[in-house]
Amino acid sequence: MTGTSAPVYARIADELARLIESAALRPGERLPSVRRLALQKRISATTAVASLRSLERRGLIEARPQSGYFVRPRAQSLAEPRLPRPRSSARQVGVSGLITRLNEASLDPRVVPLGAAIPDADLFPGSGLRREVALVARSQPRALTDYVREVAGLPALRHEIVRHYAQLGCELHDEELSITNGCTEALNLALRAVARAGDTIAVESPTYFGFLQIYESLGLKVLELPTHPRDGLVVEALQERLASRGGKDIKACVVIANFSNPTGATLPDARKRQLVQTCARAGIALIEDDIYGDLPHGSMRPLPAKAFDDHGGVILCSSFSKTLAPGARIGFVSGARWTDDIRALKSITSVATPLLLQQALANFLRAGRYARHLPRLRRAFAEQVARVTAAVEAAFPAGTRLSRPQGGFVLWVELPGAIDTLAVYEHARAEQLDFAPGPLFSPTAGRYRNCLRLNCGQKWNPQTERALMRLGALLHRSLG
Amino acid sequence: MTGTSAPVYARIADELARLIESAALRPGERLPSVRRLALQKRISATTAVASLRSLERRGLIEARPQSGYFVRPRAQSLAEPRLPRPRSSARQVGVSGLITRLNEASLDPRVVPLGAAIPDADLFPGSGLRREVALVARSQPRALTDYVREVAGLPALRHEIVRHYAQLGCELHDEELSITNGCTEALNLALRAVARAGDTIAVESPTYFGFLQIYESLGLKVLELPTHPRDGLVVEALQERLASRGGKDIKACVVIANFSNPTGATLPDARKRQLVQTCARAGIALIEDDIYGDLPHGSMRPLPAKAFDDHGGVILCSSFSKTLAPGARIGFVSGARWTDDIRALKSITSVATPLLLQQALANFLRAGRYARHLPRLRRAFAEQVARVTAAVEAAFPAGTRLSRPQGGFVLWVELPGAIDTLAVYEHARAEQLDFAPGPLFSPTAGRYRNCLRLNCGQKWNPQTERALMRLGALLHRSLG
Repeated sequence: MTGTSAPVYARIADELARLIESAALRPGERLPSVRRLALQKRISATTAVASLRSLERRGLIEARPQSGYFVRPRAQSLAEPRLPRPRSSARQVGVSGLITRLNEASLDPRVVPLGAAIPDADLFPGSGLRREVALVARSQPRALTDYVREVAGLPALRHEIVRHYAQLGCELHDEELSITNGCTEALNLALRAVARAGDTIAVESPTYFGFLQIYESLGLKVLELPTHPRDGLVVEALQERLASRGGKDIKACVVIANFSNPTGATLPDARKRQLVQTCARAGIALIEDDIYGDLPHGSMRPLPAKAFDDHGGVILCSSFSKTLAPGARIGFVSGARWTDDIRALKSITSVATPLLLQQALANFLRAGRYARHLPRLRRAFAEQVARVTAAVEAAFPAGTRLSRPQGGFVLWVELPGAIDTLAVYEHARAEQLDFAPGPLFSPTAGRYRNCLRLNCGQKWNPQTERALMRLGALLHRSLG
Repeated sequence: MTGTSAPVYARIADELARLIESAALRPGERLPSVRRLALQKRISATTAVASLRSLERRGLIEARPQSGYFVRPRAQSLAEPRLPRPRSSARQVGVSGLITRLNEASLDPRVVPLGAAIPDADLFPGSGLRREVALVARSQPRALTDYVREVAGLPALRHEIVRHYAQLGCELHDEELSITNGCTEALNLALRAVARAGDTIAVESPTYFGFLQIYESLGLKVLELPTHPRDGLVVEALQERLASRGGKDIKACVVIANFSNPTGATLPDARKRQLVQTCARAGIALIEDDIYGDLPHGSMRPLPAKAFDDHGGVILCSSFSKTLAPGARIGFVSGARWTDDIRALKSITSVATPLLLQQALANFLRAGRYARHLPRLRRAFAEQVARVTAAVEAAFPAGTRLSRPQGGFVLWVELPGAIDTLAVYEHARAEQLDFAPGPLFSPTAGRYRNCLRLNCGQKWNPQTERALMRLGALLHRSLG
């Protein structure tokens, strides 16, 4: 599904990446020279160089002076984390005060930000969007004094979002879309529309701790489903649970189908279809969070699960907070058959989203500036993930397993079983180091004790490298 | 409590208004001449004229050519609505789809906006605040890319809000304040922090239907308390209920202590103190919505109930949506002893409020522009309320009772008992007329059938007058 709009160099890079993935090109093997690649693919030498450099940034190949490009040795490369086998009863959520400490760490400029999953603000085209804001502020007399009259949000912005998804091959509809205060509000509204306190939500395991806080605040029970570190939620496990005695308490399944947080897993299209159909047959909602979807490391933007929705059963939630403007707090929800309930809840809980910011963002999207900005951002995250991967491979103890996300900017690390990341966290914070300890990602006490998540959203620099080396040393020490 | 910063003319006008209220000056009596007033009060003739004109705008006096100013005849002036006696059991809320129709009417440019309580955008200094937005957008590189790191909101804005209330004589604290997406979000967070589904909330009767929708969405039961059309909630009724068998289910009391919606009632200070103490003794939260507080028709800004809070038991919610910039969606909540819970819920439900808009508003407040804008807005609403009052007096059936709010911009009308405002509403909408039928303001089916609320937020014009005349005719007709 390489977008036809992807530049040629990116398409060529994707082709080569697939050869490496499939082991047609093995670690240590030489890639075609620039000249040969140009001849083979009928492209210019400049384009060939761009393709190879792109693969280098993604950490897949390396340049050797006077010799050319080689597939990066993965002799020391780490195995993927194991498929978790979460305990199978639905449970009340009890998320600890650890999250507060994680947020505090993200506020402390002395701490290298490897904890909270926050992208580097320097990666965003702040000035372009700010210019649109200033323009709207100067030119629209009612930009601050009118409510956005449509509770669903500004029609122009909804239209641009529909257009963006249409270009990916996913059909949304203006009349099902509502603009929200970020993806977090979108998720809250979706959950409140489909479930009541005491109901059960089926979730990935491990899952993003922010979701667990939402479930807890709404009195929802959580059923953890095994989630493959590469291919995502095991749909058969959901099917089994739906067929079981407690299955009728399940009101929704929440999933990040593309570049999930924390594992980076992406459901293959066949599995997405299977998941959508499973939920439709059971009559439960599939709530999809797509905030990382626009951030593939290659040029292949995976489809949302929503693209396979024939029955109005998939609620898609997303925002521009991971890709463009976290501070604008603009998200959206495509509400499927719960659209009316979601809009009513939006009106009751926060009335509307600021008109001025919606208009500025609509203008920015319409001018094609978001689409032009994405490739640069994707390359940056690909490089940052590759750099952190290399540092983990170099510094973490033997037996460490590591996710290999194809997009987004978080890494999931499974450490040797004897390591307790909560204990390590205390030592780490004492040294101004930060990461997200594994137990945050499950409501089950003690689960993922030997795991952790690393944020790769920040621009790589020597401090990050030093922090990862030091963290590796702490992990070694905790093994005794 | 006339603010020392109120201009001299406004203070003199207030003095004269009190003489009229107390009947020291009776309808038809002549006021001192400009010359005499200037001498009496040691003010200039210009200031004396300004005082008299201000009273004229408030509908209290009228000019007679060549004769001077006279207290406006209230011979035909209407009695206040009666003290309601709501049924006294807590009940699940079931608000009808009527609200949707009311919102639709407010979107229809053909309809004179006497329904939804929306102020006229032309009354707000849109350009000044928009200029601040443009300035922040141009000058702060991270205004859209950074989250507001403090979940409580921008410290500069919180400080300005604390300063504003300090000038009124009400002490708030930065560390208890959180910025929200409008007052609606503030109320949602406050309610969720103090109560769970199934708990009971004690409320004014009649009460704002938007509150009823919130209670319904949170599964809260509602106990209606009699509310005097001038002096507000009858605190003794709350005391009785708290002492009764079901009293322990009551977790909070929600009140608009100043210029309540829909009655316009304002609790006298002694009653505010009594209410605060009653809630404190019972250990329940008093949640105060202060969005109309800055809108007295005279220069006397009443104290919030929060000013009488010695025990950290009063949660104050408000916003700038009725006074400055509805579209900016900026509100705030002073969380008292529930501050931590409120901030945690804010973080879970919408993360943050847009930094750029917070900064622009903080700059606007710091420059004193909000304080300078308020007197003009107050005069406008005073005039509009007076105009609608006069039209109701002229056009509505004999036996009509009418509230006499000292601030805000809504009027509460009690019609002869035979009139069914829901039935009249159907006829009215067929003629592009709008109002808020009384039954919206109670969860009890059929209550306030013969009442209605009129929005006076829109600038007075001939269309408004015609609409009120026509509405009067419909009401007469419905009496048969």
